[in-house]
Amino acid sequence: MKKFTSVSDVENLQDIIKKALQIKENPLSETEKGKGKTIGLVFLNSSLRTRLSSQIAVQNLGLNVLMLNAAQEAWNLEFADGAVMNGETVEHIKDAIEVLNQYCDIIAVRCFAGMKTKEDDVNESILSQFEQHAKVPVISLESATRHPLQSLADCITITENWKEERKPKVVLTWAPHIKPIAHAVGNSFAEWMQEMDVELIIANPEGYDLDEKFTKEVKVIHNQDEALKDADFIYVKNWSSFDDYAAMPEVKENWMLTNEKLANTNQGKVMHCLPVRRNVELSDEVMDGENSIIYQQAKNRIFSAQAVFSEILDEINSK
Amino acid sequence: MKKFTSVSDVENLQDIIKKALQIKENPLSETEKGKGKTIGLVFLNSSLRTRLSSQIAVQNLGLNVLMLNAAQEAWNLEFADGAVMNGETVEHIKDAIEVLNQYCDIIAVRCFAGMKTKEDDVNESILSQFEQHAKVPVISLESATRHPLQSLADCITITENWKEERKPKVVLTWAPHIKPIAHAVGNSFAEWMQEMDVELIIANPEGYDLDEKFTKEVKVIHNQDEALKDADFIYVKNWSSFDDYAAMPEVKENWMLTNEKLANTNQGKVMHCLPVRRNVELSDEVMDGENSIIYQQAKNRIFSAQAVFSEILDEINSK
Amino acid sequence: MKKFTSVSDVENLQDIIKKALQIKENPLSETEKGKGKTIGLVFLNSSLRTRLSSQIAVQNLGLNVLMLNAAQEAWNLEFADGAVMNGETVEHIKDAIEVLNQYCDIIAVRCFAGMKTKEDDVNESILSQFEQHAKVPVISLESATRHPLQSLADCITITENWKEERKPKVVLTWAPHIKPIAHAVGNSFAEWMQEMDVELIIANPEGYDLDEKFTKEVKVIHNQDEALKDADFIYVKNWSSFDDYAAMPEVKENWMLTNEKLANTNQGKVMHCLPVRRNVELSDEVMDGENSIIYQQAKNRIFSAQAVFSEILDEINSK
Repeated sequence: MKKFTSVSDVENLQDIIKKALQIKENPLSETEKGKGKTIGLVFLNSSLRTRLSSQIAVQNLGLNVLMLNAAQEAWNLEFADGAVMNGETVEHIKDAIEVLNQYCDIIAVRCFAGMKTKEDDVNESILSQFEQHAKVPVISLESATRHPLQSLADCITITENWKEERKPKVVLTWAPHIKPIAHAVGNSFAEWMQEMDVELIIANPEGYDLDEKFTKEVKVIHNQDEALKDADFIYVKNWSSFDDYAAMPEVKENWMLTNEKLANTNQGKVMHCLPVRRNVELSDEVMDGENSIIYQQAKNRIFSAQAVFSEILDEINSK
Repeated sequence: MKKFTSVSDVENLQDIIKKALQIKENPLSETEKGKGKTIGLVFLNSSLRTRLSSQIAVQNLGLNVLMLNAAQEAWNLEFADGAVMNGETVEHIKDAIEVLNQYCDIIAVRCFAGMKTKEDDVNESILSQFEQHAKVPVISLESATRHPLQSLADCITITENWKEERKPKVVLTWAPHIKPIAHAVGNSFAEWMQEMDVELIIANPEGYDLDEKFTKEVKVIHNQDEALKDADFIYVKNWSSFDDYAAMPEVKENWMLTNEKLANTNQGKVMHCLPVRRNVELSDEVMDGENSIIYQQAKNRIFSAQAVFSEILDEINSK
Repeated sequence: MKKFTSVSDVENLQDIIKKALQIKENPLSETEKGKGKTIGLVFLNSSLRTRLSSQIAVQNLGLNVLMLNAAQEAWNLEFADGAVMNGETVEHIKDAIEVLNQYCDIIAVRCFAGMKTKEDDVNESILSQFEQHAKVPVISLESATRHPLQSLADCITITENWKEERKPKVVLTWAPHIKPIAHAVGNSFAEWMQEMDVELIIANPEGYDLDEKFTKEVKVIHNQDEALKDADFIYVKNWSSFDDYAAMPEVKENWMLTNEKLANTNQGKVMHCLPVRRNVELSDEVMDGENSIIYQQAKNRIFSAQAVFSEILDEINSK
């Protein structure tokens, strides 16, 4: 694997899921693989699971790690090409990346959507600079439009929880929120599920359809009850409008997932990437109920990261 | 040791003091004990000594460590059970703890008193959630009402500095401050000293008596000079009112510890947990004088932490 | 080497450059040297290169490391001797240093100029406290008036890029900026270049002469074009006025380094310590052009740090 920013960087999804599950059985099986190599974990945004699970994966692989909370610890970054830097920004992202090239064998970066202009976010204004200027493999720790390490953990979790012959019915359902939230997790889950052997349906209110670049031919239903019927997995996530970018058109029905709605599913397993707003996106009873596999998802972030870092190291070590 | 949040978690105080002193002689005697295990050091508040001494202890034991400055690096936490999270909080502490359960073999947390409501602080509104939801051993790095790793370091320091047969006279004396300060260090010192073979007296102005839950039968004197007479150890610390919670009733006498006051003691050794406000809590001459064992206390934080982490690891490894 | 805060701590500059270049060839040749030793990396200011390159050096030497973002993670520091600490400051720098003495075998600290009073900065009001109170070797990660790890990296970089018999002409040229910037990099470069076998010239507008304590007999020219003529190395850096401390007297000519100006040099190599304000200090075309050795400089920060840490460890281990 040469880089990891979307599902298209994965040669064979079933193989990497299998690898991750083997790592879960024996996390310390490759403690020499990263010896003498350095990964930079660069955070432009908040993080709990990604921050911690990545560090565990790094330790399990014997990698050296450089943690950088870029905003708080380093310099205010400029992102515009050709900028005359006579304002608040102190260092151009190009220069920061080039310095990371000098110091790291792998660069992993978290760079959320700014939610200011659709163009910047759709074009991955930050991640694209890493992809363009990095001379070492780049790993996304969530970018403006995708969260691939989360999606791989989601695939691992569904694989662990599905033993039947038939395809599971997987519903990605929109949930309420109080602020305009990015599309990365929704987009990414849609994209990865299309590579899995599942029946995927997306449920969201009118005005909230995701970018078709990610959802492609997936059926989108604007009625949550209809979508949830007989679902085997329910992935709960908020996102703001894509068409009317970052807007929050009014939604009349209550889309919060409750036990009552869950009763309509096929004893559906509930998933969420976390952090979750309890009693807004889903109810306490769902979160704490036996159908939730949300913490299992969180744990699988370790093995998702470790499988990816390991494959990147294979590529580096083969040179 | 199954957890460490107060002196009641210690089976035998003299044994753990002895162990800490052995570690001080040979800090690298157990570098394999933590191999393959992970401790999460979670800071909800500022820290210098606790942050650094815990990391040294962790390194000496060969533990992997996940450092988390929760407020700055992760998400704004909700602490109220059943909250409808439609405000500023992004992740419920229950969910953060459950994720830490997935990632860590030990969870250590610093969670100061909020100093807003007596009820919240007395009930340890944050630490109690860790005690309730953590599925791995919990270690307090200072909570609303106690600072047990400090108190253990204090016991170690007194043990090192007392070679006579008779019980030393130990005075915990209130000191001035400019802001309402929590009771954790005072409470905790009182609690641990009652387990030591010392004569403990507490000196504080009227209106500043500590919670009797911690001081129990200990003699409380409202006249500092009287209390300090013939003291062998003087522990200097400010706290705000407990009865009139977090208030700062006026104090007419000057309670700052000076050389003049020290002259009244039995060449008493001066202790403080740090950070200290010089020339407010105690004078420069006391801080920099030969009676101060304050830096020795700070050093002993390493061995306090290492002894506790080591005993927790014994428990984990025995399973 | 007993400490490292200026060029005067280096016994033989050519020897340490040679050592650094050997380390660059084989960075993992001394992975046992730091075993069981701890270095504290204390940051009072922002840092990208220093933060990351120091950590790589530390890892290569097998040192334990304590990272401390003092302002955000610990306590608000008091710097004034004898202060009555009844204001915003919570811990005296003397006490923080004494605690670091207890925890570290080496203390490295970044403490920028405050740019408030000339006296404080010229007297190194913060670093001097470390030099006075530290009982272990002190390393400057940039202080008010010097940036010696940068200057050593600059010496390494010039050595790598100069193979001719004759002395290279090295021009330290002032560049525009929008804020009052400290003199540390300029001072330090001037000081170190005087120990190198080069012809050094400093170019800056009138009113911007550096402190003669650092520049001594070096020729200072107030006309940039004249200075740049036939230059082999051009070191670009802004600084504010020293005489009229931290002021920014008006400059009529445009001192931004451009390709047009570079044409006047002897195919001069361009250097900068980073971060750089593109299209203010120098143009994009210069930064991204083939004459820039700026990223090579950044990489050499690793070997500069590792050579210094290694020599400090030699001193410690010899005791």
